[in-house]
Amino acid sequence: MDVMPAVPAAEVAADLQPRPIPGAMLEALAARFGPRCTTSRAVREAHGRDESPFDVAPPDAVLYAESSEDVADAVRLAQQYRVPVIPYGVGSSLEGHLLAVQGGLSIDLSRMNQVLAVDAQDLTVTVQAGVTRKQLNDEIRHTGLFFPIDPGADASIGGMCATRASGTNAVRYGTMRENVLGLKVVTADADSVTTGTRARKSSAGYDLTRLFVGSEGTLGVMTEITLRLYPLPEAVSAAVCSFGSLDAAVATTISIIQSGVPIARCELLDVNAVRAVNRHDRLSLREVPMLLMEFHGTPASVQEQAQAVQQLAHEQGGEDFEWATTPEARTRLWTARHHAYFAALQMRPGCRAVTTDTCVPISRLSECLIETVAEAEVSGLPYFVVGHVGDGNFHVGYLLDPARPEERDLAERLNRQGVARALRLGGTCSGEHGIGLHKMDFLIEEAGVGAVALMRSIKHALDPYNIMNPGKVFAW
Amino acid sequence: MDVMPAVPAAEVAADLQPRPIPGAMLEALAARFGPRCTTSRAVREAHGRDESPFDVAPPDAVLYAESSEDVADAVRLAQQYRVPVIPYGVGSSLEGHLLAVQGGLSIDLSRMNQVLAVDAQDLTVTVQAGVTRKQLNDEIRHTGLFFPIDPGADASIGGMCATRASGTNAVRYGTMRENVLGLKVVTADADSVTTGTRARKSSAGYDLTRLFVGSEGTLGVMTEITLRLYPLPEAVSAAVCSFGSLDAAVATTISIIQSGVPIARCELLDVNAVRAVNRHDRLSLREVPMLLMEFHGTPASVQEQAQAVQQLAHEQGGEDFEWATTPEARTRLWTARHHAYFAALQMRPGCRAVTTDTCVPISRLSECLIETVAEAEVSGLPYFVVGHVGDGNFHVGYLLDPARPEERDLAERLNRQGVARALRLGGTCSGEHGIGLHKMDFLIEEAGVGAVALMRSIKHALDPYNIMNPGKVFAW
Repeated sequence: MDVMPAVPAAEVAADLQPRPIPGAMLEALAARFGPRCTTSRAVREAHGRDESPFDVAPPDAVLYAESSEDVADAVRLAQQYRVPVIPYGVGSSLEGHLLAVQGGLSIDLSRMNQVLAVDAQDLTVTVQAGVTRKQLNDEIRHTGLFFPIDPGADASIGGMCATRASGTNAVRYGTMRENVLGLKVVTADADSVTTGTRARKSSAGYDLTRLFVGSEGTLGVMTEITLRLYPLPEAVSAAVCSFGSLDAAVATTISIIQSGVPIARCELLDVNAVRAVNRHDRLSLREVPMLLMEFHGTPASVQEQAQAVQQLAHEQGGEDFEWATTPEARTRLWTARHHAYFAALQMRPGCRAVTTDTCVPISRLSECLIETVAEAEVSGLPYFVVGHVGDGNFHVGYLLDPARPEERDLAERLNRQGVARALRLGGTCSGEHGIGLHKMDFLIEEAGVGAVALMRSIKHALDPYNIMNPGKVFAW
Repeated sequence: MDVMPAVPAAEVAADLQPRPIPGAMLEALAARFGPRCTTSRAVREAHGRDESPFDVAPPDAVLYAESSEDVADAVRLAQQYRVPVIPYGVGSSLEGHLLAVQGGLSIDLSRMNQVLAVDAQDLTVTVQAGVTRKQLNDEIRHTGLFFPIDPGADASIGGMCATRASGTNAVRYGTMRENVLGLKVVTADADSVTTGTRARKSSAGYDLTRLFVGSEGTLGVMTEITLRLYPLPEAVSAAVCSFGSLDAAVATTISIIQSGVPIARCELLDVNAVRAVNRHDRLSLREVPMLLMEFHGTPASVQEQAQAVQQLAHEQGGEDFEWATTPEARTRLWTARHHAYFAALQMRPGCRAVTTDTCVPISRLSECLIETVAEAEVSGLPYFVVGHVGDGNFHVGYLLDPARPEERDLAERLNRQGVARALRLGGTCSGEHGIGLHKMDFLIEEAGVGAVALMRSIKHALDPYNIMNPGKVFAW
């Protein structure tokens, strides 16, 4: 699904030259993989887009890989012919990661969807990169364990590694950074390398796992991933709390985090988002700003946490909690939250959205969010706000009429202003979506020329022919 | 303090050639730094050793740096003259990190001991690299926050970053990997680069922070560090639980972790360690294997956790808990734990120790620990066991007579066997001490030639003249 007026990706990555797959390599791919490697136009187009604003940039061919060996053999050919390789999971990237801006081979990992080993006693699992997060949780449900990272979309675990994803549970359980124990990666020279172990910690050498997590496919293709799991909490309660203003909801969030209550989820929806999910999911939430929260623990601890948070909310004029204690009621609420984005799009028929992703230190959240929303109000563009506010991370979605380019320009200007504000407040341009094609300038602003030069040195060292998802994160 | 019979470091790093500081560079150092740069023999020797088994390998000069600019200027000279640079904190490394195996300049960061910014509302602090963990906790006590990472020694925060340290609280709060938000680093080309932000999470570019954390000074000199802090728990209780056997203590640990109780500390002492701390700290602990535990939370939650753990201990035949509820009693107990190593050395007058550092998935802890201890018993060498067992990490200290080289050989053989066992069980050769000079072969065994080649490529890219702590982690 496109979420913004289409823009040629080449406008962003202006220095990129096409590096099409030569005939000899196509023949070698056909010989090795048969019909699993295709140049069908429809398949190529489906693999040359994601949920970013950019126009389709199809690869020259798509390989459906079924093993690490498949991936290694394909990368070996790509290395030999100096052709780009783009790993593909489910296509839910928001920043243009999947676009073949120089052509090349898209390696679709969706058939690598085996849960390879559940080590319930160690709270670890090893999966192939194409396993999705919902599939994983379905397959391990019988163990009494779960994998908490939840970016909304039913993304592949490989894709979630690539963007260092987080989502609603990160406030308690951390992000992919904290929850990946080890990887199998096919590097640019077609080696299969293993990083990390199943031990919870290690001081053995450079942290290659963390280097690959968040590298957006630019350093190698992750084919297997070992993750931490958590015992399903004995008790879970979800609550909705309505507030008279966004200010009050954000102030409550800040005091929750500063108090150290181990809240499991703390999500903000502004009035526009609440209105959208009410209509989309036929709910009857009060159409005012709200926090959607979840508490995990023993029954006593859940009760204690909820009481502490209710008290903090009352101090800001928040209403009494409305509870969702049954699994069904909770699922209904969280499904609505996950639908917020699509629900909001339907509030302006035919629209697309530009979505921001800033994240700031918690004490600056109020300043950052309230100023950003004030700007959105003044702009006249329809918008909505949802946020993993416990982490200081929120998204403003600007709803655009694709027939009016000035709206897109305005939304991008608002995005730039929001990022500048977040950076000034000690934050980051991307809490969880990554850099891709869309935020390369923001990365330089945020990290500085020196840090980006270090990243580039690492890229040059590990991928000297720039075959791994070229044109993303930073210019070559 | 030397803890093992002295061995020339050159025996380990056999390919290293001396690269002494030339006269012209010494003059430039003197001109820039005056008496803060010294070639005094006593100072050089004090900086050419750590707590590793290796013989002193003094640097050619020692600089007492007072700012990031000092460090950058010194590195610029080192780069110009191709001279090694070794960052020095307090000298508590256990694996030879601080030895100037090719000569060069030791940069002592102990004067860079300012807490630069406490952002209590954001639960973050920024410190210079020479601040020690105890100093940090003293200076922030008034904020109601604390920094949990506790490797025993009063190490510098810079040193703890360099080795990716952890210690007693890691089972609940994570290691330096999880608790460093950002860094200021002087790279090999004398640039000052900033990594990370004060936001809790980010998906902006490669995770340079995690690359430097654990790189043991081989990629740059960390000069400033931003850390996560935590609210001091409302209630803290420490308990001792005695067991009839090591087996029972380890089985209890495994069930605690698998149950998901958020225990804050879970430390094992074998009978030899208990005996040693009794004598050293004049305690009267029962001389049987014991777990030393701590619970953090609200009063109700601490009580609930303790009850759950007591129940699990009873199931393994553990005794009733003995409680240390006052801060003084807790301090006495944890001080004793931190003295275990030195206390054990005093059990064999004149001895030194070889200490292992394996870490395995929790389900394999029993197999790993019990087999390793059985081997220690059969060996006839005096030994003791302490462990951060909640993480699957434990240390066997073998007590050697330095006059008997066959004892050292035996201890190193036992260390090798222990590492081989840990790797077979899916674990790591180093849970928290790092690789340094001592575990370079183990790293290759653990990570594989391919992964070490990636590390080497990164090193070559970021430090092409190999001036940053050369000869450590892996061969050039």
